[in-house]
Amino acid sequence: MVTRLSHFFLRTLREDPADAEVTSHKLLVRAGYIRRAAPGIFTWLPLGLKVKSRIETIIREEMAAAGSYEVHFPALLPREPYEASGRWESYGDGIFRLKDRRGADYLLAPTHEEMFTLLVKDLYSSYKDLPLSIFQIQDKYRDEARPRAGLLRGREFTMKDAYTFDYTEEGLDASYEAQRDAYERIFQRLGLEYVIVAADNGLMGGARSEEFLHPIAVGEDTFVRSDGGYAANVEAFTTAAPVALPIEGQPEPQIFDSPDTPTIDTLVAHARAHLAAPAPGIAGPATDDAREWTAAHTLKNVVLALTHLDGTRELVVVGLPGDRDLDEKRAEVAFAPADVEAATAEDFERNPMLVKGYIGPWSPTGAVLGEESATGIRYLLDPRVVDGTAWVTGANIDQKHVHSLVAGRDFFGDGVVQVASVRAGDPAPDGSGPVELARGMEIGHVFQLGRFFAETLGLKVLDENGKLVTVTMGSYGIGVTRILAILAELNNDDKGLVWPESIAPFDVQVVATGRDAAAFALAETVSADLDAAGLDVLYDDRPKVSPGVKFGDAELIGVPKIVIVGRGAADGQVELWDRRSGDRDVVPAAEIVARLTTR
Amino acid sequence: MVTRLSHFFLRTLREDPADAEVTSHKLLVRAGYIRRAAPGIFTWLPLGLKVKSRIETIIREEMAAAGSYEVHFPALLPREPYEASGRWESYGDGIFRLKDRRGADYLLAPTHEEMFTLLVKDLYSSYKDLPLSIFQIQDKYRDEARPRAGLLRGREFTMKDAYTFDYTEEGLDASYEAQRDAYERIFQRLGLEYVIVAADNGLMGGARSEEFLHPIAVGEDTFVRSDGGYAANVEAFTTAAPVALPIEGQPEPQIFDSPDTPTIDTLVAHARAHLAAPAPGIAGPATDDAREWTAAHTLKNVVLALTHLDGTRELVVVGLPGDRDLDEKRAEVAFAPADVEAATAEDFERNPMLVKGYIGPWSPTGAVLGEESATGIRYLLDPRVVDGTAWVTGANIDQKHVHSLVAGRDFFGDGVVQVASVRAGDPAPDGSGPVELARGMEIGHVFQLGRFFAETLGLKVLDENGKLVTVTMGSYGIGVTRILAILAELNNDDKGLVWPESIAPFDVQVVATGRDAAAFALAETVSADLDAAGLDVLYDDRPKVSPGVKFGDAELIGVPKIVIVGRGAADGQVELWDRRSGDRDVVPAAEIVARLTTR
Repeated sequence: MVTRLSHFFLRTLREDPADAEVTSHKLLVRAGYIRRAAPGIFTWLPLGLKVKSRIETIIREEMAAAGSYEVHFPALLPREPYEASGRWESYGDGIFRLKDRRGADYLLAPTHEEMFTLLVKDLYSSYKDLPLSIFQIQDKYRDEARPRAGLLRGREFTMKDAYTFDYTEEGLDASYEAQRDAYERIFQRLGLEYVIVAADNGLMGGARSEEFLHPIAVGEDTFVRSDGGYAANVEAFTTAAPVALPIEGQPEPQIFDSPDTPTIDTLVAHARAHLAAPAPGIAGPATDDAREWTAAHTLKNVVLALTHLDGTRELVVVGLPGDRDLDEKRAEVAFAPADVEAATAEDFERNPMLVKGYIGPWSPTGAVLGEESATGIRYLLDPRVVDGTAWVTGANIDQKHVHSLVAGRDFFGDGVVQVASVRAGDPAPDGSGPVELARGMEIGHVFQLGRFFAETLGLKVLDENGKLVTVTMGSYGIGVTRILAILAELNNDDKGLVWPESIAPFDVQVVATGRDAAAFALAETVSADLDAAGLDVLYDDRPKVSPGVKFGDAELIGVPKIVIVGRGAADGQVELWDRRSGDRDVVPAAEIVARLTTR
Repeated sequence: MVTRLSHFFLRTLREDPADAEVTSHKLLVRAGYIRRAAPGIFTWLPLGLKVKSRIETIIREEMAAAGSYEVHFPALLPREPYEASGRWESYGDGIFRLKDRRGADYLLAPTHEEMFTLLVKDLYSSYKDLPLSIFQIQDKYRDEARPRAGLLRGREFTMKDAYTFDYTEEGLDASYEAQRDAYERIFQRLGLEYVIVAADNGLMGGARSEEFLHPIAVGEDTFVRSDGGYAANVEAFTTAAPVALPIEGQPEPQIFDSPDTPTIDTLVAHARAHLAAPAPGIAGPATDDAREWTAAHTLKNVVLALTHLDGTRELVVVGLPGDRDLDEKRAEVAFAPADVEAATAEDFERNPMLVKGYIGPWSPTGAVLGEESATGIRYLLDPRVVDGTAWVTGANIDQKHVHSLVAGRDFFGDGVVQVASVRAGDPAPDGSGPVELARGMEIGHVFQLGRFFAETLGLKVLDENGKLVTVTMGSYGIGVTRILAILAELNNDDKGLVWPESIAPFDVQVVATGRDAAAFALAETVSADLDAAGLDVLYDDRPKVSPGVKFGDAELIGVPKIVIVGRGAADGQVELWDRRSGDRDVVPAAEIVARLTTR
């Protein structure tokens, strides 16, 4: 059926909406695809719903091809399963909670791991039932602190989430690969460039975790990649430990006065002015031929306060080369599920042995950092602080530092931690060369959950030997509305949207111009012919609207092919306008169907 | 793509679920269509989702044919629009309310009138934009006091809701007719018998309101219909007032002792024993030739307490013929938006002039009921109590009644009220003959909202003369999940579900039986052929499952056509089993596609 603009529910706007910051948000509102209903919550207008539905169809087809079956969970869920998994608490302010008339607790589901797990537990009991792959396309809810960027970070949004269920590691790997392949096909069909990066695998105890990122400068995720093929988001990047250095023969630690040097910069300046140049072989940048003191020679000790799930507060000190900053996102991941923040003035007051600006693992009277030290504070080291490296660092005495402090001789860590900032040129951990940094937007996530939820919620099956085994799961998500926004972000020009054919709201837009009844009659015929040929046709049949307004609307809406029926109508000629290239060809009306259906 | 039962996500159950009361709930759970997630909240399994999606497709097609465009509103909505319409309050406990992290109020939308109105206000401003028809298929939320009967009365449920926007009465009528016609086509395609009954038009000020009821004995709605074509639900049924009788010459009211007669039954027995037989021409059943006292000669005065929206409590007395009861549902509608309940002992204490069991509008010392009476209590009369009718009723003195009390002479009402129970044989108000009573389930509602929401929320457009006029709206709802349940309720037998072809989860189920590899090979071919012919095929390829179990599952699932491939496979023979009739035909495998695709 031809959709007529004279009746269609559409109003294009000339002005960008006041609250829109990003292009996709501006254009989707101006072109009549979405409308704001509340912060981060949108109403879908007919054009928007059509594009969304085309994306969903592509996802459904590829999920079916991957052997996944569609289900649909409620959005409104009882507290109990989330209580059991610990997420009722751990989500904090991030979810919407409510009570029903009887006072029972409910939430609006932000994800459905618990429900998928319980459903399978409810119905399946044997290894013969596995592998199983099920998915849903469903509206989800997160009470974002700052909903922004239109559909890119909303509070009500549509996701495809799939889960796989296996009872062996090999099964999980096969299920994971099938989903990963399906994701590649989905993004290819959507015309959406992607990079698959290693991601942190979180707390769930699973093994593989990869994100599909669309590389784009405005992306909120940073990832690294090497020419040799390594790719990871910064949270998952790991620094390999260099080879340890010999300890024997290294000079003894030497305390020195270092007035007013509470920062790395002031410390380095002081060292350059007052200390002999660093001896070869001590820690520092390998390329530093000048043998001058640099931040890389210093050991920065950052005091963090962790808040564990049970509410207890723990101080932890992280030792990093002074030329590295602590990366907050990496720290969040490294210490999860604990919350991490910088130690407060109060924390320092409670620990007077930590002399702010002059903190170090060592003091003339003994170890100051480490579980076995005088403070008992856990001390974690960057992987670069290997045994035998010598450092300039605080001496735990006001205005004093120490140099020639050797790891593995003068101080020891309680473990290694990957929280230092990542820089372009850092070596990829797989030896594939130096990495470069890039920005991207997450468009999908494939993730081996492993046995966390199955263990927590008791999902077990009988194996071939009649033994109860815990099921191992995979989780696979795609943000449907987010992808729509990214596609709008990528496919536009200064006139409006320019949809790829795979997801355009209509295949072709027919525009009748002028006041000539013959033009409208021909446009009517052309529209009917295109419709009969199986194309989805939007026909701008509005009388008394100027060609300029009609063309402007067509450009804003972004249907990829536009057929203009106007002056040439009397001669049976129409114009075929390619929205993306801007090319316009005069074509006999009789040939237009063939032109638009032949590839 | 052929769906294989060996991989499909399905588990059929032998036992009815413990909490299921109705057939549809039992069978949909047992056959693996839905699963309970919380009271009145369900998870859709693949089979259920397919049937739901087929119903939605039929609705979408007919909505499109009716010129309605699809939109999609959020489920999570801000308080403000509902505050403006007064429904944030008036919904009471019936909706789910919540707060976001900033403390702002939200609700889970039970319906979207306000949002539709505001959206059109937001985008449209001229009569040229109208008429407009838009709809959505969306999950809605109501915090039902007693969620029950599975999908028939849930707390999260799917509805199609459409709204039309016009600026003239004629336009609204045309839009209404178009939707009403679409509903008829939808229910016809679904194979769902319906009766269109006049419904109460509520408070919205609109004119026409009709419900589509499916006539079924277990339905929760009662409706009436006449052979002459009248149909209404009981709330909307009206009793026409009979012609008034002459007052002149009627005997004067006569108080009489009537000890221990606080009920109609005791009063009638007393009258028969102690009063002269009723004179001809006084109120009473026209067919009562015996001229004996009956309940119909008495006037029953029912004291009700209304609670108005502003919280004030008002007593109202309703006068009805003693052979009629007060119908609570009709009273609810008649007094809405006030809440109505029976007067309490406390109410009577506060109004000592009302002598319980002996209440009447009249007393020897003057009028007792009515706004102008001694009590000032509003007094509303059943339409049958016309001027000139004479009644036996309470005299407002303990143990005393009065007879020959004539309406329009001895007492007066403040208005007419339609709250008496309706009985089979009552005359239809349109003169089309006596009505019969039947029960049904609401499956759709078409409703002229009129200007209530547009007025409240300020939806106006400029008309042809440049004058601002308030838009007039129609509202049209279909309960998608409810219809699915009703269809399951109607289409089953003692073996399981029996779906109509229009909404079956699959077109055909192929069952391979036995251990013969040839049977499985042929079943594979038959499945592929049927799939290639465009049929949606479920193939029961489970090895080592007995034919009995496979047949039982097929009967429970209810796919309308079943192809059994077993013993005859070696000879190229299969069995075609019609689930509804139970007929089984032996058919050459080569002909099965033709048999199933020819109508």
